Parts: sequence; C-alpha cells; structure tokens
Amino acid sequence: MHLPQQLSDVAALTGRRLAALLDAQIQLGTPERLVAAMRHAVLTGGKRFRPFLLIQSAGLFGVSPEQSVDAAAAIECVHCYSLVHDDLPSMDNDKLRRGQPTVWAAYDEWTAILVGDALQTLAFEILSSPATHQDGAVRSALISALAKASGAAGMVGGQALDLEAERLHGSGRCDADHIANLQAMKTGRLIKSACEMGAILGGAGAIERAALADYGDALGLAFQISDDLLDAEGGTETVGKATGKDAAAGKATLVGLLGASAARAALDRTVTQAVSCLAPFGGSAAPLIEAAQFMGRRTS
Amino acid sequence: MHLPQQLSDVAALTGRRLAALLDAQIQLGTPERLVAAMRHAVLTGGKRFRPFLLIQSAGLFGVSPEQSVDAAAAIECVHCYSLVHDDLPSMDNDKLRRGQPTVWAAYDEWTAILVGDALQTLAFEILSSPATHQDGAVRSALISALAKASGAAGMVGGQALDLEAERLHGSGRCDADHIANLQAMKTGRLIKSACEMGAILGGAGAIERAALADYGDALGLAFQISDDLLDAEGGTETVGKATGKDAAAGKATLVGLLGASAARAALDRTVTQAVSCLAPFGGSAAPLIEAAQFMGRRTS
Repeated sequence: MHLPQQLSDVAALTGRRLAALLDAQIQLGTPERLVAAMRHAVLTGGKRFRPFLLIQSAGLFGVSPEQSVDAAAAIECVHCYSLVHDDLPSMDNDKLRRGQPTVWAAYDEWTAILVGDALQTLAFEILSSPATHQDGAVRSALISALAKASGAAGMVGGQALDLEAERLHGSGRCDADHIANLQAMKTGRLIKSACEMGAILGGAGAIERAALADYGDALGLAFQISDDLLDAEGGTETVGKATGKDAAAGKATLVGLLGASAARAALDRTVTQAVSCLAPFGGSAAPLIEAAQFMGRRTS
Repeated sequence: MHLPQQLSDVAALTGRRLAALLDAQIQLGTPERLVAAMRHAVLTGGKRFRPFLLIQSAGLFGVSPEQSVDAAAAIECVHCYSLVHDDLPSMDNDKLRRGQPTVWAAYDEWTAILVGDALQTLAFEILSSPATHQDGAVRSALISALAKASGAAGMVGGQALDLEAERLHGSGRCDADHIANLQAMKTGRLIKSACEMGAILGGAGAIERAALADYGDALGLAFQISDDLLDAEGGTETVGKATGKDAAAGKATLVGLLGASAARAALDRTVTQAVSCLAPFGGSAAPLIEAAQFMGRRTS
C-alpha cells in the first residue's frame, strides 16, 4: 500500500473517531453552538499527519490502528486547538485555513478562544480514558509526553518566541539557531511526541523509543522547512491558506535567512537523517520512511 | 486552628509549590517573558480556595498537605488559566483583578492567550508526574476528573453559555434554571472536582467520594451566589476588582433575577445543604464545614 492511501485511511479513521467524540459532547451537556464550533475546528479537512505518525509508530509494535486511534485523536485535538488560537486576530490574524474561514472568522473571537481551550482539555480527557489503554501508567505516560511537548517549554513556548521575534524584536535580531530552536519548539516537539506516544502505546523499550524520538525530531524539522518553502513558493490555491504571509509579517524563517536553495539542501539532509533513525525497524518502517521522503517533495 | 489560618497556610504552601514549578520552567527552556507572564497570572494573590478544598478533602483520608499539594497546584493552574482567558477583551474585558492589571493589560492579548494555554497544559503535566502520586491509575483518575470538570461540558462550556446569554440572546431570555445550570458548569464543576480529586488522592470508597462530590456541588452553588451578591453589593476597594459590572453588562445572575434578599435566602439553604453532606466524616470535616459557612458571610 502506498503512502497517499495510508495517509487517507488514517485520516478517515481519525476523522470518524473525532466526529464520534464530538457527538458525545452533546449528550454530556456541552452547549450546541460550542460543539458546532469545535466540529468546525476539527472536522474541516486536515491531513491528520500527527495521527498518522502515532498510529504507524504504534504499529511497529503490533498495535492496530483501531487500538491507537484514541491517542491519535487526542494529539489531533491539541494540533487543532493550536491552529484555532494561532489564527486569532491578536496572533497570526488568519481568516482562511484549509480553504475555509478560521473559527474566529466563522464565529467570533471569544468562541474561538473557548474552542481552543476545550479542545486542549478534550485531548487530555481522551488520554485519561481506559478506552485509550487499559493500563493507567501507560495513560499517564501518554499524557506526560503530550503535555511536555505542547506546553510552555514546547509548542506554546515556540509560538511565544515566534511572536516575540516578530512583534518585540523585529526579525533582524534572530539568527539561524534561534529560528531553528523556536521552530523545533513550535512544530517539532508535537510531531516528535506523536512518534513517542506510538512507542509508549506499543510498550517500546528505551532504545526503540529513542530511535522513534530521533526520527520525530528530524521529521519535525523537515516539516517546518518544507512548510516555510511552501509559504515562500506556493500559491494560495495549492496550499489552501494565504501564502507569502510570513515574509509580509517580517516573520523569521530559515528560508528567509538562508535563501530557498540552502533551505532545500537542509531539507534533503534532514530527510536522510530521519530515514536513518528507522534502520532498527527494518521493512516494517516503510510507511514512516515514505513519510519522511514525502517531506522532501511536498506541494501542499 | 481557625479557618482564616488554615486558608492562609494552604495558600502559602500552594503558592510556594506553584512558584517552584514555574521556576523549573526556565530550566526546561520556556521563554523568560512567557514564564514572567505565567508568574503574574498565578502568583499575584488569590485565595487558593480550590487547593484548600482538595487538600482538606484528601486530609479526611490521612493524606498530608505536602502529599496533596501537587494536585492542588494543578487545579489552581486551571483556575488561573480560566481567569486569564475570561479577562480578555473579547470576553469579559477586565483590566483589573486582585487589585493588579490582568495579564493582557500588563502584557498584551496574545501573551495572555498563550499564558492561559500553557497553564492548562501545565496542570495536566503536573498531574501526570509520579511526584503527584506513585500509582499511574490514580494519576489518570485525577486527570479524568479535572478534564471533565474543566472542559466543554464543564467550566469552558459554562463560560460559553454565559457569553452566549449576554451577547447572543440578551439576559431576558434566561430563566433561573438556565442561570443555575450555566453557573454550575462555569464555577461549580471545578469546585466540585477539587473535592473529588481529594477523595481520589485519598483512595476514598464510592460512598465517601459521592458525599464529597455532593458537598462540592452545593459549595460551588453557594460560592457563585455569594460572588453575585458581592458583585451587586460590594465596592471595588473590598473586592479588588471592578464591581457592578455584571449588571452593567446585562449579565445573567441569580441576584439580578431573584433580587438580593431571595438570593441570600437561597445562599443560606445551600450552605446548610453543603454542611449536611459532610455528616459521614464527623469532626474531622470541621474545616470543610467552616468553609461552607464562610460562603454565607463572604465580604471579599
């Protein structure tokens, strides 16, 4: 089976699970308008790339997609919450995402803030449920990994550094190391945690878990470089959101600092590095290898 | 030992633990400005009422304050995150809290949004740590209780209903049942979960846990009625934040709907009910009984 098919299978499975989890919110007494806005945030497209990584990583240890889809839905909730908040007027001020109005544009600012808050909570609620894993220690380890990756020392901290660079310092004060660090925090840590959470679900040993973490690290960097290249080179029609915005906002990117051709060379090196981390898993890691190679030739 | 002393002892213990947890963020690579804003959100006063309830509830089962302070710090992080987001211009637009500028007023909107996001994550990170409890199943149960209380079907949903009532419908369409429900979600569920989390930490049986949950339910309602009475009757100097705002914003409150004297009678009945839930615990529940009685005569 080839990567596009595997990606779309995982996207469909994750989407169905997320839809069911959001439907259940109504029975729990969640206000209907809030559920509708959460559905808009979570069920309007998305590649489900983090769920793919989590499910494939867990699959290396014999865990079926059906057994790992709850954890996959949880990490997707965190990813979606971060997009909803990042799109807000006081942050990136984006009105369009995946070809649709962003949550604040479709509803209003306070609804978008609450949608993000509720999606973050839902992620941890899902992970604390015995449906995710029967062993409380495994559930707690999944929560620890996700929280460390997505909090102040990870994703949220990276977004803070990104906005500080743009608003408080101007991009001139940023060097390549600073940009690499903030991008690793903002984007890389969550991608890395998807791989680690798969390893945790699979009961991986320390060496296998570290190999998947290293893979996730490199993949996260490749993802960010390819994203910056797409923003610099792609058109709105292909990417499904406004492009060229980073440069217009004076936002610090490696492409802006190194130029497109050096960034593309760095991307190729990083993809090679990611693939090399998977050597211990042999042929069963083919989908994760393909995912890394896909980063080298993304068009959306 | 009397209630004010017990409250201030818990506040000091919880404050020290929160300060240490935030200091540790710097070592983890969290941006300094973000940590400073998180400190502003968490360490600028606060009665630490939820930590008090959690620590006292756990104490009924022989758990020492030092053993329950991490869980107490976690629930306080959730409470503080909700205040930071509720204060935002697109929500309650409050510039003053506890006599200090709110986070968005002291920093800016995007920082306040990220501070709230990061504090929520930190709460779940703390609860997933073996320092909170050595048993992963207990940690997972604590996380489940906190997530259910604070998410879309709880605190966040209550805030959504509150803003919907004010912005979308006008307060005229709200009846007393609707207001009681939204206040139970917005404020009551987290107060209730503080008591339940204490029971979980203490290894309580089902009957004892239900008794504490019922106590927390009644206490939460008493808290909200007393808060509304303070808003309607108190002055800025006593309360430390702007008062009379709810009425000015056309916000739905039981005081506005029933009048102050009927609301005070409801408060007295609710306090009596809360106290009656504690009968199974005998004299050791004295601090929790006093806490309920305190609600009947709050002045700040």
